[in-house]
Amino acid sequence: MAMKIVASLREAISLCGLKSGMSISFHHHLRNGDYTLNRVMDEIAALGIRDLTLNASSLFDAHAPLREHIKNRVVRKINTDYMSAGLGRSISEGLMDESVEFRTHGGRPRDIALGITPIDVAFIAAPTADPAGNCSGKYGPSACGSLGYAFPDAMYAKKVVVITDNLVPYPLTDASIPEIYVDYVVPVDAIGDPRGIVSGTTKITRDPVGLVMAETAARVIRHSGLLKDGFSFQTGAGGATLAAAKFLKEIMLREKIRGSFASGGVTGYLVDMLNEGCFTSLMDVQCFDLKAVESIRTNPAHHEISAMQYASPAAKSAVVDHLDVVLLGATEIDTDFNVNVHTDSAGCIMGGSGGHSDTAAGAKLSMIIAPLFRARLPIITGRVRCISTPGRDVDVVVTQRGVAVNPAKPDLALRLKDAGLPIVDIHELKQIAERITGVPAVPPEGGRVVARVLSRDGEPLDVIRQLTR
Amino acid sequence: MAMKIVASLREAISLCGLKSGMSISFHHHLRNGDYTLNRVMDEIAALGIRDLTLNASSLFDAHAPLREHIKNRVVRKINTDYMSAGLGRSISEGLMDESVEFRTHGGRPRDIALGITPIDVAFIAAPTADPAGNCSGKYGPSACGSLGYAFPDAMYAKKVVVITDNLVPYPLTDASIPEIYVDYVVPVDAIGDPRGIVSGTTKITRDPVGLVMAETAARVIRHSGLLKDGFSFQTGAGGATLAAAKFLKEIMLREKIRGSFASGGVTGYLVDMLNEGCFTSLMDVQCFDLKAVESIRTNPAHHEISAMQYASPAAKSAVVDHLDVVLLGATEIDTDFNVNVHTDSAGCIMGGSGGHSDTAAGAKLSMIIAPLFRARLPIITGRVRCISTPGRDVDVVVTQRGVAVNPAKPDLALRLKDAGLPIVDIHELKQIAERITGVPAVPPEGGRVVARVLSRDGEPLDVIRQLTR
Repeated sequence: MAMKIVASLREAISLCGLKSGMSISFHHHLRNGDYTLNRVMDEIAALGIRDLTLNASSLFDAHAPLREHIKNRVVRKINTDYMSAGLGRSISEGLMDESVEFRTHGGRPRDIALGITPIDVAFIAAPTADPAGNCSGKYGPSACGSLGYAFPDAMYAKKVVVITDNLVPYPLTDASIPEIYVDYVVPVDAIGDPRGIVSGTTKITRDPVGLVMAETAARVIRHSGLLKDGFSFQTGAGGATLAAAKFLKEIMLREKIRGSFASGGVTGYLVDMLNEGCFTSLMDVQCFDLKAVESIRTNPAHHEISAMQYASPAAKSAVVDHLDVVLLGATEIDTDFNVNVHTDSAGCIMGGSGGHSDTAAGAKLSMIIAPLFRARLPIITGRVRCISTPGRDVDVVVTQRGVAVNPAKPDLALRLKDAGLPIVDIHELKQIAERITGVPAVPPEGGRVVARVLSRDGEPLDVIRQLTR
Repeated sequence: MAMKIVASLREAISLCGLKSGMSISFHHHLRNGDYTLNRVMDEIAALGIRDLTLNASSLFDAHAPLREHIKNRVVRKINTDYMSAGLGRSISEGLMDESVEFRTHGGRPRDIALGITPIDVAFIAAPTADPAGNCSGKYGPSACGSLGYAFPDAMYAKKVVVITDNLVPYPLTDASIPEIYVDYVVPVDAIGDPRGIVSGTTKITRDPVGLVMAETAARVIRHSGLLKDGFSFQTGAGGATLAAAKFLKEIMLREKIRGSFASGGVTGYLVDMLNEGCFTSLMDVQCFDLKAVESIRTNPAHHEISAMQYASPAAKSAVVDHLDVVLLGATEIDTDFNVNVHTDSAGCIMGGSGGHSDTAAGAKLSMIIAPLFRARLPIITGRVRCISTPGRDVDVVVTQRGVAVNPAKPDLALRLKDAGLPIVDIHELKQIAERITGVPAVPPEGGRVVARVLSRDGEPLDVIRQLTR
């Protein structure tokens, strides 16, 4: 067979025939420890290639060097599901001529599969690979666990380059992405910094406000009517949502409830719940900590899923469609239950939907946990700066001063009220917050559009405008 | 989420919108124990649907009832990789108006993926499935092990129906085919007869001629220069090739050679070789016996692969491309090393390429094991009745009276001769056979074309003509 091993990134880029104006992609499983994107971009820039579309499942502060490539017009356009504040602030300040397109973790694979966002060359950082390109995130010094977000890139890109710092003999048996999709394999010294790839451990909050909200959230789940054998659950890695998972676990163990699966970005807390019998399986598109990586490597009940299986609306079904409950965060919530996770209250980009909208749309009960205010800014507003997840997909908002239920769910409100939960109208929560913080001066809407937010089905949902100074 | 469970096959067929003139597909992992194809066809016939193209990875004697559906024009066209004599004889006698198209196990997924043979509805018999269609062949009363051949059908068919006799709760964690591809799930009493799905055990030959050939084949491998650490190997489930594997195993254990992988249809003999350290992994597109099914279920080093990864020429690489040695059978071989596995010497269809051509093309050394004659008919002829695998891909023919090496491989001939192997010109083997059997009267070439054989790359390779009486 044709050897796929290529000595350098630059050679692989040339072999792929990458030209100005094409589209390239990256996955984000190495998170803030990723070396790969920056190194590939530097090589591309050195080759004089310009005007690329960069399709990245997420962009972290580690990718701030992209600023230079944007200024030099190596990158003309960005499609991503998440952008942390490092690059986000620059985008909000008007760094790019073309607006960033924000998708969801389900919308991205949908649009790749449907050919809406075609990829010419996918670069896949792989913690382990063999010379034919079979690769896995479970093994090696840069192990990140699941490679779920890289599957659509591998399957649909015209050319696929696997970059690895742990080349093993053919065949890598327990491969995530098979050789059938891979054109070239580039061995490198390191694909990332393990300290940035996964956190050592994820920590639940010790903040008393966070603990109050977490306990309330667990009580909402308990009385939702969904917490019974077969229960399915997703939570993020935020401190308060993790604390809610801890309280939920105590309830499930005490009441001997055997759930079916937990999904999503997986933390050691979900692994513990699996091992203690709260769930029969984990459906894992991304590992957040070392315990999750160790578990997906060794426990067959901890299953890697592709981004398509996680959340794509183009899939005939996806894991998010089976969720009973999802716990989510927010930077802002408005009185129509719309949620913002893209910008801060001043409208500066510091996040993105990720799987937020996908799970909110799929789960029977989608719950936001958020304090009434942060840094003396109210979280519940008349209108969010950016609609990331539409209010129609948000059922409950849990704060430290009460629980608001979407008026579209009157039965749920009644049920929770009967159970003694502090049900409050969301307008009232807004007023409580404003009594404490005062009504903030709303920063003026900025100038031209710097980013567009697409729903998971590809519909325009909102825009983000340039910050005014 | 939308429930996919459908109460009956008939309802599922209707929901898929199957219409006359469309294309349907089946996989053959249940082999001669399969109930599914016949039952689906009966329902389709009852619905009055006609003129279908039937795309089956293989057809066995269990599928002989297809004759009636062909006569009644429910099936107008057949695409398959293999057809046993039960239906094969009828086709050879002129049952169908349109010629059968024979592909290889690699060519079939290639042509499905490229849209050359589009599938409207794929019917996937699944030994275990969950209500969302996640399915596996490893578990359940009808366990067949790998579901490798069903992957392209699931991925590329417009509609996919999973039929199972072992419905389990969502999520089936260790699924082979994920829910993202599945439209409907039909629970049934039984998808097949376990006695026909896998043989209890596969048996090596006790025939003295077979044993002579097998030992010679093992010696050829030993002296080929390929038998060293990292060695990779495939063999079929025929008695003589299995015996060759047994002799090979003894050599490998004695000489402490650690191979890399064995592939293909997997038998208990290859499982034993894995467990005794001859190989580090098995790459399994199909299980032939209970021991293989048990192994793929329990041993992570025994890996299920899709038909694409097994052999597709449209894949960026496939397992067959990595093979050192493959042992294959033949019904006829000619003096140009062309091999026939489609028909008997009289030109009657009783087989097909399966993975024959794919592995022969991919392996560094492709070896045919065949006796000089069977039932007083010589196996080595001036011209095979049907070219299944072209002579350019066949390196060595092992018989009980000597070993013929393709003249395109003079170095190999020299090396084997130096090692004391009985190297004979293939014309001489033909003469030896004819001295014993006499020169048989060649049955006349028949009438119109009843089948076309396509190479793995989709090129016309040969035709099969109607039998004359």
